[in-house]
Amino acid sequence: MQTFGSKPCSCPSFKLREVASMYFTMIAVFLVILVVALQGSAPRGSDFPYKVPLDPQGLLELSWNVSYPEQAVNFQLLIRDLQFGLLFGMSDRGEFENADLAVLWSDGSNSYFGDAWSDAKGQLHMDSQQDYQLLGARRAPEGLYLLFRRAFSTCDPKDYLIEDGTVHLIYGILEKPVHSLQAINISAIHGGLQRVQLLKPNITIPELPSDTKTMEITAPDVVIPSQETTYWCYMVELPKGFPKHHIIMYEPVITEGNEALVHHMEVFQCAAEFDSFPSYNGPCDSKMKPDRLNYCRHVLAAWAMGAQAFYYPEEAGVAFGGQGSSRYLRLEIHYHNPLVFKGRRDSSGIRLYYTATLRHHDAGIMELGLVYTPVMAIPPGEDAFVLTGYCTDKCTQKALPAAGIRIFASQLHTHLAGRKVVTVLSRDGRERQVVNSDSHYSPHFQEIRMLKEVVAVFPGDELITTCTYNTQDRSQATVGGFGILEEMCVNYVHYYPQTQLELCKSTMDLGYLHRYFNLVNRFNDEEVCMCPQVSVPEQFSSVPWNTFNRDVLKSLYGFAPISMHCNKSSAIRFPGDWEKQPLPTITERLQEPVPHCPPAPGPQPAAPIPLNLGQLRRD
Amino acid sequence: MQTFGSKPCSCPSFKLREVASMYFTMIAVFLVILVVALQGSAPRGSDFPYKVPLDPQGLLELSWNVSYPEQAVNFQLLIRDLQFGLLFGMSDRGEFENADLAVLWSDGSNSYFGDAWSDAKGQLHMDSQQDYQLLGARRAPEGLYLLFRRAFSTCDPKDYLIEDGTVHLIYGILEKPVHSLQAINISAIHGGLQRVQLLKPNITIPELPSDTKTMEITAPDVVIPSQETTYWCYMVELPKGFPKHHIIMYEPVITEGNEALVHHMEVFQCAAEFDSFPSYNGPCDSKMKPDRLNYCRHVLAAWAMGAQAFYYPEEAGVAFGGQGSSRYLRLEIHYHNPLVFKGRRDSSGIRLYYTATLRHHDAGIMELGLVYTPVMAIPPGEDAFVLTGYCTDKCTQKALPAAGIRIFASQLHTHLAGRKVVTVLSRDGRERQVVNSDSHYSPHFQEIRMLKEVVAVFPGDELITTCTYNTQDRSQATVGGFGILEEMCVNYVHYYPQTQLELCKSTMDLGYLHRYFNLVNRFNDEEVCMCPQVSVPEQFSSVPWNTFNRDVLKSLYGFAPISMHCNKSSAIRFPGDWEKQPLPTITERLQEPVPHCPPAPGPQPAAPIPLNLGQLRRD
Repeated sequence: MQTFGSKPCSCPSFKLREVASMYFTMIAVFLVILVVALQGSAPRGSDFPYKVPLDPQGLLELSWNVSYPEQAVNFQLLIRDLQFGLLFGMSDRGEFENADLAVLWSDGSNSYFGDAWSDAKGQLHMDSQQDYQLLGARRAPEGLYLLFRRAFSTCDPKDYLIEDGTVHLIYGILEKPVHSLQAINISAIHGGLQRVQLLKPNITIPELPSDTKTMEITAPDVVIPSQETTYWCYMVELPKGFPKHHIIMYEPVITEGNEALVHHMEVFQCAAEFDSFPSYNGPCDSKMKPDRLNYCRHVLAAWAMGAQAFYYPEEAGVAFGGQGSSRYLRLEIHYHNPLVFKGRRDSSGIRLYYTATLRHHDAGIMELGLVYTPVMAIPPGEDAFVLTGYCTDKCTQKALPAAGIRIFASQLHTHLAGRKVVTVLSRDGRERQVVNSDSHYSPHFQEIRMLKEVVAVFPGDELITTCTYNTQDRSQATVGGFGILEEMCVNYVHYYPQTQLELCKSTMDLGYLHRYFNLVNRFNDEEVCMCPQVSVPEQFSSVPWNTFNRDVLKSLYGFAPISMHCNKSSAIRFPGDWEKQPLPTITERLQEPVPHCPPAPGPQPAAPIPLNLGQLRRD
Repeated sequence: MQTFGSKPCSCPSFKLREVASMYFTMIAVFLVILVVALQGSAPRGSDFPYKVPLDPQGLLELSWNVSYPEQAVNFQLLIRDLQFGLLFGMSDRGEFENADLAVLWSDGSNSYFGDAWSDAKGQLHMDSQQDYQLLGARRAPEGLYLLFRRAFSTCDPKDYLIEDGTVHLIYGILEKPVHSLQAINISAIHGGLQRVQLLKPNITIPELPSDTKTMEITAPDVVIPSQETTYWCYMVELPKGFPKHHIIMYEPVITEGNEALVHHMEVFQCAAEFDSFPSYNGPCDSKMKPDRLNYCRHVLAAWAMGAQAFYYPEEAGVAFGGQGSSRYLRLEIHYHNPLVFKGRRDSSGIRLYYTATLRHHDAGIMELGLVYTPVMAIPPGEDAFVLTGYCTDKCTQKALPAAGIRIFASQLHTHLAGRKVVTVLSRDGRERQVVNSDSHYSPHFQEIRMLKEVVAVFPGDELITTCTYNTQDRSQATVGGFGILEEMCVNYVHYYPQTQLELCKSTMDLGYLHRYFNLVNRFNDEEVCMCPQVSVPEQFSSVPWNTFNRDVLKSLYGFAPISMHCNKSSAIRFPGDWEKQPLPTITERLQEPVPHCPPAPGPQPAAPIPLNLGQLRRD
């Protein structure tokens, strides 16, 4: 009997232990060289185009840039008043538990930098794979700059995946010397969160032409009502004979101190068929509000909490003024005043930048998602309940030009229970492209976002908008509607050339909801009043929310026919049969993108990197 | 401005490229040494207690052992007639796609061994992480022995996870020279599958006492009916005055050639309250069968396709004979004859090994799972539909002794759609222990398996049995019942000391099923006949299986109250209220075990290992 095996080793003088020892020494040498090498390639300060203060006092200031070819973000963190270090990181919704952290800590003499993570109890651990790569640290008169880099995806399950959309950044300041990472007590730390879109699109801001003018559409020193939700309406008139212009940019004007109260603002243009509109300055739901104001629904500009200035692409601008265009505008401001402040005065609004040099296309805004109706509801106690609104092939067939439209920006909108929003373009039953997606959506950060890629939509395409809600803190069903505690699922898409289609949204057929309430009555032996004469919200509030009633509602929303709102303005439908329409069928879903993992040399050892920062102060 | 960074490297004469080159050389040296070192520790031939032929001719014979401390299986594969190599591996259900493979291949001059995987199209790829570790290869007069090892879990997503329960082994013979792994055309290969329980428990077979006798309970040269499903009944009488004995082992006796027809066999003891039973030899559902045979339902021994000899633990045996025990036995054989063979004769049955030296405890068998009723049904076209049967706290409270029972073996049972079966013990609403689990369950391999750990069950405990079915090849609903195309969800647990509880199973309340059919009628505008006067299977066959009807049925099975069969024998319930019982609630689930990954040195490079096998024959 003869033994065959692998070829014998050509260097038999090595023993296993010796080789292992050399192996680890080599890795260590390799890594030190790597850090030094990377420091040489660290980007300079001017290379960080995006900047945001992390804390309200501005002690921590984050700048960053995005390298799409390398699939990585380079951070520059300015620490104005370094004490004994800080935590910086990312987590699902800004919580300090289950967070992915870069930590700088000092025991007073020695300082260290490391990639760490916090568990569900907030305890810190050194990460077995070090993915916040330190590029350098430098002292400047204004403070200490830390430069580090992070790949979008690290393939380490403990790490946060940096995706398009909102990222909840967290920070914490170490005010006492720390002897080890594990000794940091996260609950005792002064810290907070800041929401940003880290992966900004690679788009250059178009230059404004020299004939650009500005106009402010602002509230006239309004006293904000001392109630939680107010929609304030204020009518504005353009000068007589004001010719057609293109709005090419706009930005919010917020009265100082009211930043937390102004929830969203829109400027609507009134219908051209009326020669004049009455002036008005008061709540939109007041009985005193003239009925004619209901004909002021064409969106000119929209801003919501967290958004910045908005620039139109060079090919397009929003038309206003001129023939066939009303001189009357309605400013609508949603004041959200949960602490019921009294007597707060406000002159917020929107500043329009416009030009008489018309661009090639008129731009428009279209509303996708769900109709504002209590038919679409979310049971209480759900951690991720999904509702979907459809813009059907039949509607785009009717309303879009043969050459299609180009969507270039999108603003996602829900009320307080919204956690994720995504719109997908589907053609012939196959999902083709994500229009806009935010997996860490926050109703407190509703920017209008330029799309990374312009989306072409043709007649017959479908636009499917899906919202995910969390109602774990609620004891009653949350129904669709206008109130801040009711819900919406909307994507305002900005596109050109403008069409008549202003609203392409859906809701479940009401008849199926009645059958559902009937079923709840039959399957639940409890005595609940599901009398058909009471309102839908009242019926929802009577449902005993057991697993069966939840599952059936969920299933029904994915099955029942829909009523389409394929509207020219929110009151006028395109001609056609829009009731009891079949749900669009999807035969092929978009693949989840496969995370792109960092290339070799592979994981670095789980050891902190010492930094020479000198003696740190001890208060 | 001053730059601070990591400490400078202590060996600055190394350049990055040099270090990288040394690094990889070191790794290579390390791995070669590792392979040589492992060869030294390869187990010898006598160390492989389990053996199974892979192919029907016995050209490939697999032996193996299990190292629980190392969480690895050592394989010895004997290839009697090596041509140009072979594939050996594992896959979910024995398919050649998405399989995890060890491949030995030769181009005629050079031979290689490697860890590979096949994609969904059956194309082979070298695995980036080599987890089938070659331990050695040796030639012997009977053929070539390949020795290799595989960790239960490799943490490589391309690899199969070796779990308790059935493993589908696959093999393929390379009959032509192969120039690369990628060149292997899997569809042209002569191959097959063999089912085994790889992770056999570490239990030593008890020695049989010297006074052991045997008795064969076999069919008297029966002509197997030429129909798909037959349950054959044959009455056997023990000698008069036969005293109490303990059955301590039994094994199947299968008539040669009928191995594929005998689906399962059981020996039942008749009720002691009747002095005599009529003799009978015929189908169990015949009108000629004496009614009294319905009182022969106490299981003495059970065997099903794929099982081997069964040994009782040293503390227990199954009582038969003596006072208060009937002399009459009923043998029941389930013949499964799908090809409708005519005139096949059969004398199969069970050989009992028994002793007069009574052991400490009488052993018993208890049926857990679902009642055989069409109320529990699976819609067509489902890839993984789940049904659950409960043995409730109320029943164990009524029927089990205060000191509890010990379950030492288990036989899982479904009909042809069954894909997974698991029974979990729950106490105070918290899942505590898996009784038996098979995630790759096959109805063609229903062994009685000794448990790795004896499970103690006390009054008030719950035993929850969950079955997963695949009905993708069916166009009609599959209802519960006795036929091979109907379904069962059963776990026969073997335990001691014996109690009166023979059957602890559940089914959904029938009233709720009627409400379901009613709902289907109301929500589906199609004209379907769901008339209450027709049978449950007929009503199920009228359901239009859209997503809503599927979801609601699924949800109802997880919500509706149950009817408990807490029975002394399958016809007599324990006294109590067993209708419309609440479903057991689970507040805490068992954690999925975290896969234990192989320790350093980490992944080996994705390169085949050359083997010196000399020139291989070219036919």
